[in-house]
Amino acid sequence: MEMNGKAGEALKRKFKEYAEAVEKAILSYIEGTGTGTVLGKAMEYCLTAPGKRIRPSLTLAFCDIFGVDLEIAMPYAVALEMIHTYSLVHDDMPCMDDDDLRRGRPTCHKVFGEANALLCGDALLNRAFEIVFEAAVRDGKCGAAAGRELARLAGSEGMLGGQALDIANENTEAPADVLLETYRLKTSALLDCAAAIAVELARENGRYFNSSKEEFEKAASAAVSFTGNLGLAFQIKDDLLDITGDPGMLGKPVGSDEKDSKRTYVAAVGVEKATRDVAFYTEKAVEAAAVFGERGQILRWLAAELLDRKR
Amino acid sequence: MEMNGKAGEALKRKFKEYAEAVEKAILSYIEGTGTGTVLGKAMEYCLTAPGKRIRPSLTLAFCDIFGVDLEIAMPYAVALEMIHTYSLVHDDMPCMDDDDLRRGRPTCHKVFGEANALLCGDALLNRAFEIVFEAAVRDGKCGAAAGRELARLAGSEGMLGGQALDIANENTEAPADVLLETYRLKTSALLDCAAAIAVELARENGRYFNSSKEEFEKAASAAVSFTGNLGLAFQIKDDLLDITGDPGMLGKPVGSDEKDSKRTYVAAVGVEKATRDVAFYTEKAVEAAAVFGERGQILRWLAAELLDRKR
Repeated sequence: MEMNGKAGEALKRKFKEYAEAVEKAILSYIEGTGTGTVLGKAMEYCLTAPGKRIRPSLTLAFCDIFGVDLEIAMPYAVALEMIHTYSLVHDDMPCMDDDDLRRGRPTCHKVFGEANALLCGDALLNRAFEIVFEAAVRDGKCGAAAGRELARLAGSEGMLGGQALDIANENTEAPADVLLETYRLKTSALLDCAAAIAVELARENGRYFNSSKEEFEKAASAAVSFTGNLGLAFQIKDDLLDITGDPGMLGKPVGSDEKDSKRTYVAAVGVEKATRDVAFYTEKAVEAAAVFGERGQILRWLAAELLDRKR
Repeated sequence: MEMNGKAGEALKRKFKEYAEAVEKAILSYIEGTGTGTVLGKAMEYCLTAPGKRIRPSLTLAFCDIFGVDLEIAMPYAVALEMIHTYSLVHDDMPCMDDDDLRRGRPTCHKVFGEANALLCGDALLNRAFEIVFEAAVRDGKCGAAAGRELARLAGSEGMLGGQALDIANENTEAPADVLLETYRLKTSALLDCAAAIAVELARENGRYFNSSKEEFEKAASAAVSFTGNLGLAFQIKDDLLDITGDPGMLGKPVGSDEKDSKRTYVAAVGVEKATRDVAFYTEKAVEAAAVFGERGQILRWLAAELLDRKR
């Protein structure tokens, strides 16, 4: 799966450029938002935590692939990262995973208290959609359609549905297929947003893969197939790293992660099959990206990068 | 402030018709949403709780006043009620007001657990915006603008900002002006949404108050002046009813409400001045509505109705 050195380096640099552009844009969006208030400070604290910015960077990558100007894409990409961030804030709360640390810093509720963390998550979700509506006033119907997909995939039939399944699976012997469906929702859905945003914007603004309706729909479904499979590979790899990757976790039984009661795919199928499945879903993602030819190189690089990651 | 009997009855019936139409629309929107899942059940449980549906009904009333078809307005009105509902779900949680009952039934977290209540609130907010985006795909830029106002007024510079101020005011001697600002955000902002939705939709679809840009902007600012003042009257009245209206609260000290640590306007200025202020802000709301002439009758009726309410 390795990219040859030079090409790999160039793609890595490209992805880093996307991430840096996102970083800058996020800062510009929170400037002046609730400055001075506890809520504003909490939002800023969470949004400036060091992160890989994978989802918004992937959004920009897809927009480049479809030939949508990054200037058009940026507010949607920022909104996606805000939604990801809010989900982490709520996920860390005592009634959920009860985590003290996130990205190496104290979690939001540890710093600002539970009530403010709850409101901070709500406010980040609100702000995300406010940004998208503002962009849709400019972009018209394709912007509203991108927003609709974002809300759908982040909602009860997407990410939130997956988080609810995660809770329902606790302390059960949930089988592999239920866990895959859980991962498809709780992890793949937000990656699907990256593809969906690019696709909806490209319907009106794209320069490539639009010679016919058929070509466009083929490219659109390939994009979501890429992210869906990437999400599964990513989440199963996460489970494996919880067991093998973190020295602090050594000695914990197979299948445990941050919360012992959580049911993971690795616990259901074992380390060996899970390891093979990471490679399998990565391969499926890479196959889906074939439709994009040369323009899709960065997708193949990202899939390989995530497959090989050590944490 | 009383309306003469017959006219008052007709307006009451009209408002009830709005509320019933909203009720029906809400049910149609949650049909099939996560059916069978705990999350879907929790959302349904919260959305079907008996409520007055004041905010969405007021949205329809404003749309009628501006001459916007109610069919166009309905998804926005439903979304506003969903946002109100999510805010109650999160507000009732142990880390916030820690309430066991809401509208006479056990609160969401009492029935479904804290983790699911947290996700349920998130999902209601998501679903609200999904509905608005879907409508904006149909309605174009004015729909996106209505969504933007909704997200702005519900967010960190609107309702959520007010809830955060509420927390900051706990166990303090916060003065009257700080409390009024808190009420303006936590209560008036969602009522302002009703006005803002109608105004944004009316920019493209309204049949009245549009003979000139000047006439329209005057009507638009009157609408928000009405809701802003109505919200203050409503919230201060709420404080007063907490002391005088509920037999269960008799004997509790002035200024206490569901949570003893909460700082209220009544505690800051006393019952007499607070009572006068309810009348004062109601009067200001009614004055603002004068711009709408005959078409604004229902606004005057609603202001009187809320002023005279016993609970």
